[in-house]
Formats: sequence, structure tokens, C-alpha cells
Amino acid sequence: MRVKAVVAYDGTGYGGYQIQKNAPTIQGELESALAQLAGASVRTLAAGRTDAGVHAVGQVIAFDLEWRHSLEGLQRGLNAVLPAQISILDLQESAPGFHPRYDARRRWYRYRIYRGATRHPFYQRFYLHVSRSLSIVEMQAAAQMLVGRQDFYAFGSPPQGDNAIREVFRADWREEEELLRFDIEADAFLFRMVRMLVGTLLRVGRGDLDTASFAEILRTRDRRRAGPAVPASGLTLMGVTY
Amino acid sequence: MRVKAVVAYDGTGYGGYQIQKNAPTIQGELESALAQLAGASVRTLAAGRTDAGVHAVGQVIAFDLEWRHSLEGLQRGLNAVLPAQISILDLQESAPGFHPRYDARRRWYRYRIYRGATRHPFYQRFYLHVSRSLSIVEMQAAAQMLVGRQDFYAFGSPPQGDNAIREVFRADWREEEELLRFDIEADAFLFRMVRMLVGTLLRVGRGDLDTASFAEILRTRDRRRAGPAVPASGLTLMGVTY
Repeated sequence: MRVKAVVAYDGTGYGGYQIQKNAPTIQGELESALAQLAGASVRTLAAGRTDAGVHAVGQVIAFDLEWRHSLEGLQRGLNAVLPAQISILDLQESAPGFHPRYDARRRWYRYRIYRGATRHPFYQRFYLHVSRSLSIVEMQAAAQMLVGRQDFYAFGSPPQGDNAIREVFRADWREEEELLRFDIEADAFLFRMVRMLVGTLLRVGRGDLDTASFAEILRTRDRRRAGPAVPASGLTLMGVTY
Repeated sequence: MRVKAVVAYDGTGYGGYQIQKNAPTIQGELESALAQLAGASVRTLAAGRTDAGVHAVGQVIAFDLEWRHSLEGLQRGLNAVLPAQISILDLQESAPGFHPRYDARRRWYRYRIYRGATRHPFYQRFYLHVSRSLSIVEMQAAAQMLVGRQDFYAFGSPPQGDNAIREVFRADWREEEELLRFDIEADAFLFRMVRMLVGTLLRVGRGDLDTASFAEILRTRDRRRAGPAVPASGLTLMGVTY
């Protein structure tokens, strides 16, 4: 039976989603929990390999498992075994050929910013602290230029052999009191693309880069003028659409 | 010079506000930071001695300090020295006789609840997870009975020699999607009072206690029928009014 699960995690302290030797990973914790319940090793597939420190509330994984009990029991069992930083929010049987990465049509990421004058302990884990004033109007104008099917080479590396053309469906800043969030949804993302985009958009917000120059960086594919990438801690994979 | 400061902290992992021998405390961290900047030991006074694990965004402290530089510099210096879990949000000179506890007229606490079906890593630190369904209407009806000047002996211990009469100015539940919060403001609180109240109100919300019985517990001062206290992790001292 192939199982599809929606996973939330606090990426703080993890070396990213994908298993590696030198740091604890989300995939490592999930496969270890599955092995405990299944009594055998289980390989997982995931929609996106989030970087070290990046969070998720809508990561999608799939795995094959022989399981005689209820799926509710499997979800409860996994949540009982997983560390507090990781939780299975939903779990269902999927088609046998379901692949969370290849079948994904849209991915939605959110970047969170806390704008108080001083750092705030409640916003340490999931927010970037920015105390300088920002023009949200300018940042939103630049963000609108991202929408559509374009070459995003200026903002990130494509995988080997791939091009940098991606389709962005929406890119929006929204302000709520001293919190600010950037939502971006695309068919797929380049490596570090959201963090590079947010870093460049913050320069627009601070008045260090005008929207015409932002458009030019995008058009000329000039990565040296883009960025710098903002820290991983503010970034969350919100959801994946199939 | 007497200084008044507003302090925010993530109480997770701390043994409460007040200095003690066996655990790190907020007061201990603050006085250690002050000693580093002042070059001498500094005693602090606080509006409320929050319990182990309780958070704050509006704790108020006061201390006497000889300081030749700007107050902005003092605030920045303290925030540079304090751990990430503690932050000075505001800092001003106060009247020489200002006492954050004795001069306080109102204290406002918030208790946060996450109502998702499964535990969620984003809501581990500042929320209680309640997956059972709750009647917010009943909980709000019971909460309204708390408003006014009354004897709250059923919900907490007064300090030695004091009575349990306190004045509650407001007590409200508010729901926002899967998050729920209880705000209560009073002239002062008994030991563990907010956590005992929330624990008893959750029994009302689950249908295990009706509002008439809730009123009776309050009226008869019967502490054996109240509670149990909910965990400290959901509780935050929001602010103090002078």
C-alpha cells in the first residue's frame, strides 16, 4: 500500500529535509519512526527537499508499507514516536504510482518577518527580525513582476541539466501589525530562490534598489546583483498542490 | 536613576521569573546582564513572579542604576547580552519611588490553545493542544461570571495573611480558525489562578461541567471541585497597567 502524508516540522536544529551524514534530518526522523512501526526499513519520497533550518506545515511525503491496522492508528503511532518538532497532520492511502515530487503542480512558500524595534523571543524561530523601515508598496510592486512564466536564473540555481524557467502564480506581501509575510506559489522553485527573492525585495523595501533595477536584474539574469539570501529560519513550505 | 523596563520572554526551560537555586530564571538572566553592563550587582523588582514555563510580552521591571550613556544604549546593550529567549522591549527612566508590583493597577494574562486534530510543531511552545471539541459559547458564558469584585478562593491560594478577593475587569474567549485564546485582566491574581480558571472552563467547554455548577464552585469557594490547572506553557503575561 502506498501512503501519502502531510508533514509539519520546526526545522530549527535540523540539517534540512534530506538525509545526510553530519546532521539530524527530517527524512531521517520520519524513516526512523516508520521503521519502528513497520519493523522494517521504509524509504520515503518527498515533495521538496527543504534546506537546513527551513520549516514546513504542508510538506508531502509518500512511502510503501504493509500495514494491517487502521490509517488513523498509523498516524497516531507515528506522532507518538516522532520528536515534538515533527508531526503528521494528515495521512491517506494514495494511488500506487503517486510521487510527491514529480506529481506536484504547485508549491507554496511563506517567508515571515517581524518588524519590531527590538528582537522578540516569540518570533525567534519562525521569523526574520527587520527593524529598519520598509516600503511595502514598493516591495509589492516588485513582487508583482515575478508573476508569470519567466527565467529566474538571477535568483537561483537550476538542477543540473535543467533550465531556470519557472511559472510563478502569485507573489504577495501582506502586513498585519508588526508582522509581515511574503507568499509565493510556483510550479517549482530553483535552489534558494525564495530566500534570494526575499533578500532582493527587502533591498527594494529599504530604498536601496528601485523597482526598475529589480526588473532589470530579473531580465538580465544577473545573479551578482541579486540577493543576498535571507536566513532559512523565516521560511516555511506551506503546501503542495497535485 | 530608577529605570522601568518592559520585558518579553519565552519561559520554556526557565524555573520561573524569581531567582532560585536549582534552575535558571528570568530574574537571574536579567540581573546577570545588568551586572555585566553596570560593572556592579543590580537588584531588580518585577510586576509579577511568573511560574516556571510561563511566558511574558509585558512583564515590567524596575532597577536603580548609575548610567552615564543613553537609555537607548542601555537597552541595546542589555539585548546584546541577554539570551535569545529574553528581550527588553522598552526602557525608560521612572520616578525614583516607582515599584512595578505595588504600583500596578491591572494585570492582563492570555492563555493560548491550539485546537487541531493532531499536535503541531509550530504551536509547541506557546499553546496547549486540545483536540476534543469545545463549546466556546458555554465557556464564554462561564467566563462572564468571573467579571467583578469577588472571592476567588476556589481558584487559587492568596499570599499569607491576604484574602482571596480580587476584581476581574474582563474575561473573554476568542476563536480564530484553529486557535483559541482566553484573555483575563484583573487588579491582581492568586497563585495559579489563571491556569486553574482555564482548566475549569475547559471542563465546561467539553460538557463535563455546566455553567450553574461553575457558578456554584465560585460561590462556595470549593477548590476541590475546581481545576485541574492547565500547563504553564500556554500562559503569557501580556501587560501591566499603572
